[in-house]
Amino acid sequence: MNAEIICIGTELLLGQTVDINSAYLARELADLGINLFHKSTVGDNLGRIVPLLRQAWNRSDLVILSGGLGPTQDDLTREAVAELLGEPLEFREEAWEEIVTYFKKIGRPLPESNRRQAMFPASARVLPNRLGTAPGLLVESAGKYLFAFPGVPRELIGLWEEQARPFLKRILTETGHPVLTSKMVRMIGIGESAMEERVMDLIRHQTNPTIALYVGKGDVLLRITARGDSEADNLRRIDALYQQIRERLGEYIYGTDEETLEEVVGRQLLARGWTLATAESCTGGLIGHRLTLVPGSSSYYLGGVISYSNQLKTQLLQVPEAILREHGAVSEATAKAMAEGVRRLTGADVGIGVTGIAGPGGGTETKPVGLVYYSVALPERTVVEHRVFPYNREGNKEAAAQAVLGLLWKTLR
Amino acid sequence: MNAEIICIGTELLLGQTVDINSAYLARELADLGINLFHKSTVGDNLGRIVPLLRQAWNRSDLVILSGGLGPTQDDLTREAVAELLGEPLEFREEAWEEIVTYFKKIGRPLPESNRRQAMFPASARVLPNRLGTAPGLLVESAGKYLFAFPGVPRELIGLWEEQARPFLKRILTETGHPVLTSKMVRMIGIGESAMEERVMDLIRHQTNPTIALYVGKGDVLLRITARGDSEADNLRRIDALYQQIRERLGEYIYGTDEETLEEVVGRQLLARGWTLATAESCTGGLIGHRLTLVPGSSSYYLGGVISYSNQLKTQLLQVPEAILREHGAVSEATAKAMAEGVRRLTGADVGIGVTGIAGPGGGTETKPVGLVYYSVALPERTVVEHRVFPYNREGNKEAAAQAVLGLLWKTLR
Repeated sequence: MNAEIICIGTELLLGQTVDINSAYLARELADLGINLFHKSTVGDNLGRIVPLLRQAWNRSDLVILSGGLGPTQDDLTREAVAELLGEPLEFREEAWEEIVTYFKKIGRPLPESNRRQAMFPASARVLPNRLGTAPGLLVESAGKYLFAFPGVPRELIGLWEEQARPFLKRILTETGHPVLTSKMVRMIGIGESAMEERVMDLIRHQTNPTIALYVGKGDVLLRITARGDSEADNLRRIDALYQQIRERLGEYIYGTDEETLEEVVGRQLLARGWTLATAESCTGGLIGHRLTLVPGSSSYYLGGVISYSNQLKTQLLQVPEAILREHGAVSEATAKAMAEGVRRLTGADVGIGVTGIAGPGGGTETKPVGLVYYSVALPERTVVEHRVFPYNREGNKEAAAQAVLGLLWKTLR
Repeated sequence: MNAEIICIGTELLLGQTVDINSAYLARELADLGINLFHKSTVGDNLGRIVPLLRQAWNRSDLVILSGGLGPTQDDLTREAVAELLGEPLEFREEAWEEIVTYFKKIGRPLPESNRRQAMFPASARVLPNRLGTAPGLLVESAGKYLFAFPGVPRELIGLWEEQARPFLKRILTETGHPVLTSKMVRMIGIGESAMEERVMDLIRHQTNPTIALYVGKGDVLLRITARGDSEADNLRRIDALYQQIRERLGEYIYGTDEETLEEVVGRQLLARGWTLATAESCTGGLIGHRLTLVPGSSSYYLGGVISYSNQLKTQLLQVPEAILREHGAVSEATAKAMAEGVRRLTGADVGIGVTGIAGPGGGTETKPVGLVYYSVALPERTVVEHRVFPYNREGNKEAAAQAVLGLLWKTLR
């Protein structure tokens, strides 16, 4: 099954709205094993939408439209589909009732202009939208399918998950399409080429499952994808390959699929019944922010100190003046003293310390921009590492936060 | 001048890479007053790239390609352009020298496969790329223009800013195209509809400049756009309208164009010679992170405390136990005590305190998820505000950070 996505909306062509929908749909289609060959964006102009739609309908088995289902004169998706099919738009009582119900639920008056949203081409099916005013639309014709979703991401995702995805899964099964299953393996502490070397033979010799490598922000990712008759079958194949990969790269694998480092270290801390405190200089609070993105993090994360000034390093964290004087604020000794200091100050089981030069200014010959020292203090020992990151200020902060969480994960294993 | 963007890369169709380039280029084209009518994405497949390219070259005056200029066999943009033009690819010494120089600069060996990157269609111009290995490409033919840029955003932006934008500006001027100039006005503390009401008559009556409204994360934006013979002319018109808008909305305007709240409060603090410290609970360090995104922030931001646990609220910030017991950790009294506490602890001139329920759990009937209290303590007084945000955990944290910085800005005015 070959698919095509068309996003409709002038705001997307002005760069005012970033298109989240098409990347979401692309991932979902890949997960279903449906090939996506074209993705395009067009403004709110019937003369440009219709030819594009006709081209898509001719060359693809599945056409997905996003946007243009609102109540205003600019919303032209319904008209475009009607023109494509050569059918008139007709008022659909069932769609109108959905809209009336939605407005009642949110307690707002229903403008007359919303009647437009109940107009559908004769052969189209109405897809009720629980999350907004714009019902979606489905056309089936000669083994081809056309979906139209509202452009609001929450509504599009709702309609996709509740209606389109199950529908397509059923069609794929009925037509004997192979099932696609994949697993993302997340690693930190190894470079892309070093990882590639260790699994090159697997990549070369595997055809099902296949392996693909990606570079994320500070970590490297490996995706295993299997194609087969059933999900259970695929999972068995994926697991066999995953075990081989673990034998070679296990020490770097911190998680799979959508897991984040902050979730993984959260679970490690919970398992030990340990608490954590942070002392951040160059990251300025970003590590605390990431740790607290995890619901329930308050049961292990006490908080900490953003010691952006030397004053707070000495006053709160008790970093000795002598260390700052002799080694400087960006040094192994300072990172270590910060981690140990915040551990002592808060009584946490584990302390983190990070200090560096985010840039663009502040670098020297011996301490360049991007240099970061970071430390994890445990009850029995303290570890320190350093890296030099090549990014801009924001990128260096992000990479530093990821490296610190990576060291914490490694230390708690 | 009608433009069209084509992004080339299978990874974009798998949803693994989010396309940042096309939104950037769309904004830039809008700024130049160039109409963008189509945007599309296609995989690394010559049979699909060439027809799309031919269609674009037929219907548009300016075609911009992103991606497919790398050294691997999957990088097919050069081949596609050659096929479009009916020209052979030839080896360009000047492009090769650029590549050799770049590899010398980064101190890495130059793989033989990179010779592909020096192959160009006969009539194409080579655009040297300071920031990477892939030179860009420009074709001019019968008043039409085709640019090809590497897909790495940093490199694309570099080539656009240094070469393509000045080139297009010159073409637009030479062909008597009107100049487009715009100014973004950034506001906080007022809702979208309240803002719209105050300027509705201006929006209705203005044709040049025009006004458009947007809602950002926690703030509202207004864009003034003028069209005229010269930038100076446009700026005069924009300024006249901006003065009218300031009379009506001045109290909410914190910045213009790309200014962020953290930059604006940074300048306010510098102007007064004041220092700042933060006490964050629900935002978990996000405010510190944003403040320290500004280069030079170490001259006014001392740092602070992430008091995620009640223990750190009492121990470090001296929030009285009685307040936590009687009012709770999420309360006006606690926010105030946190702001005053961190000010006292660090000796900063200004203290910030924020406490709330980010969700998804932890809400009650009287204190729902999304409730945030935040406070700014100044030498002479302390102010407190509260809001209830409707977002998910991450969104509530972001909205809270923006609201706190907004209150700080208002207080320092």
